[in-house]
Amino acid sequence: MERRDVGPRDVLIKIHFAGICHSDIHTGRNEWGEANFPLVPGHEIAGTVEEVGSAVEKYAVGDRVGVGCLVDSCRECVNCRAGEEQYCLNGNTGTYGSIGADGRPTDGGYSTHIVVDQDFVLGIPEGISLDEAAPLLCAGITMYSPLKHWKAGPGSKVAIVGMGGLGHMGVKLAHALGAEVTVLSQSLSKQEDGERFGADHYYATGGEHGAKTFAELAGSFDLIVNTVSATLPMGKYLSLLTLDGTMVSVGAPSEPLQVPAFALIGARRSWAGSAIGGIAQTQEMLDFCAEHGIGSTIEVIGGEQIDEAWERVISSDVRYRFVIDTATFES
Amino acid sequence: MERRDVGPRDVLIKIHFAGICHSDIHTGRNEWGEANFPLVPGHEIAGTVEEVGSAVEKYAVGDRVGVGCLVDSCRECVNCRAGEEQYCLNGNTGTYGSIGADGRPTDGGYSTHIVVDQDFVLGIPEGISLDEAAPLLCAGITMYSPLKHWKAGPGSKVAIVGMGGLGHMGVKLAHALGAEVTVLSQSLSKQEDGERFGADHYYATGGEHGAKTFAELAGSFDLIVNTVSATLPMGKYLSLLTLDGTMVSVGAPSEPLQVPAFALIGARRSWAGSAIGGIAQTQEMLDFCAEHGIGSTIEVIGGEQIDEAWERVISSDVRYRFVIDTATFES
Repeated sequence: MERRDVGPRDVLIKIHFAGICHSDIHTGRNEWGEANFPLVPGHEIAGTVEEVGSAVEKYAVGDRVGVGCLVDSCRECVNCRAGEEQYCLNGNTGTYGSIGADGRPTDGGYSTHIVVDQDFVLGIPEGISLDEAAPLLCAGITMYSPLKHWKAGPGSKVAIVGMGGLGHMGVKLAHALGAEVTVLSQSLSKQEDGERFGADHYYATGGEHGAKTFAELAGSFDLIVNTVSATLPMGKYLSLLTLDGTMVSVGAPSEPLQVPAFALIGARRSWAGSAIGGIAQTQEMLDFCAEHGIGSTIEVIGGEQIDEAWERVISSDVRYRFVIDTATFES
Repeated sequence: MERRDVGPRDVLIKIHFAGICHSDIHTGRNEWGEANFPLVPGHEIAGTVEEVGSAVEKYAVGDRVGVGCLVDSCRECVNCRAGEEQYCLNGNTGTYGSIGADGRPTDGGYSTHIVVDQDFVLGIPEGISLDEAAPLLCAGITMYSPLKHWKAGPGSKVAIVGMGGLGHMGVKLAHALGAEVTVLSQSLSKQEDGERFGADHYYATGGEHGAKTFAELAGSFDLIVNTVSATLPMGKYLSLLTLDGTMVSVGAPSEPLQVPAFALIGARRSWAGSAIGGIAQTQEMLDFCAEHGIGSTIEVIGGEQIDEAWERVISSDVRYRFVIDTATFES
């Protein structure tokens, strides 16, 4: 795989760390049925600037930078102009598996270098290590964006469904934003971690405790962010929302969900979806994380462990994100 | 059927007109499986005050008044205190089919008189005739409340799905609020009416035009209010929303709807539910209607035509609401 030459507005980044996102696996295994192989996955990228094009003003050699899920967008549609490049109406350019403006397929972060237009490069502030920063570029912004959009903060009661790579970031971010945070997880196996990350309450939704949890928490939450892509009993989860509460899904099964409309109508509830975040908000999130001492909780692995790590991601056996040390690609 | 004695805070209303709502039929035929028979339906009531209790300050004999879906609520829960009695957490008292504070079953508007606590009696302003006002008490507020809550107004693009008793009110109200209004109806058979009620655009969603409609209108609407209780292809309807757009269901089939989460995630869309409106907002709606010259478009019938009217409601053969002239009960 070769990267394009560094154009006037491009930044050549030496990748230090690349997070492993579940999407990488779906794409790598062609489970979403749209991948163009060969393809290098990875959209949680942290590194340093090695070279800049002649017109680059935002970054200089040596700067600590990151790249997330997007490397370009049309920049002209109403959504791009609103800073919501993730919802570009003309099709944005994914960090991998897309076709770039130069007509060539894009490749991601499981690699030593990447060339990205400066407008899609993020600055990683001092105060977050690069390895713990990498997963912020997808998992972090995926949680930060809905928490901000639906105004999680002091006085609001937020539930995070699922305690994986996304969920653990949701707990840290919602807590730092000042919300009262409850984790809803299948079991209590990660309760200690959840409370350490900032959860005020931790409930099991499965097994013997499940029925009690749903009864006790009925009508409790202003906002539920659902990180679980599997099929959930939506009526039960929606019943946990207060009047005017919103449940936001940031992932989803490929099959439609079965949703009883009466669960919405009975308390003017909403069910919404959210995808990552815009570039400006991603920078805001990184700055927020630095200010609050927030990074992802990770296991760093070498390139030779990727296959094993993918298997462990599939079986939810990771606390809470694998990050590849890309220096191991060079040895 | 006997009404309770007029208590200190009660208003005895001589009913002039009662609208026929589809809920009456569901309840009357026990399709919702919770009715206590015998039962008198009707929750779109317009009439005049015939007697008031000693502590009644809001109304006087002769006043033009209405009663909607609610005749009481707990008045203490957080939702009641917020003026959202329709979402009372302790169970509000329906105009029919509930048990009132006196322990007796409540009966509705297909009748000559009703006794209601003054706090649940609405004033019908001069400028709306009582027959055209009756359906505002349920159909009108059911549409007005979500239009206001989701801020339909100048600059917003609103679609109304369905052109029945609810839908035709939605068109009139959204237009009067200043929104650009589109009707999405199975066919174009009511297009002329729709445009007369204030629709700027009118599209067929079924038959040969359906596919073209959904293609042409993709990403168009800030707000869709869905009045259709039948199962809809939700992914197609959600795709008509713009970024951050909301589809609101005010009715629903008894079975869960199949909803593809990706249709929400792809543009941060929401699907919400809404039920009638609070008492204060119902009064606001009546005042708004009087100010804008809005009533329901109705067919007035006699009591002996109710069975026939119910059949015609079921087959959607009404433009747009049946209203019973309750004077015919006395002859």
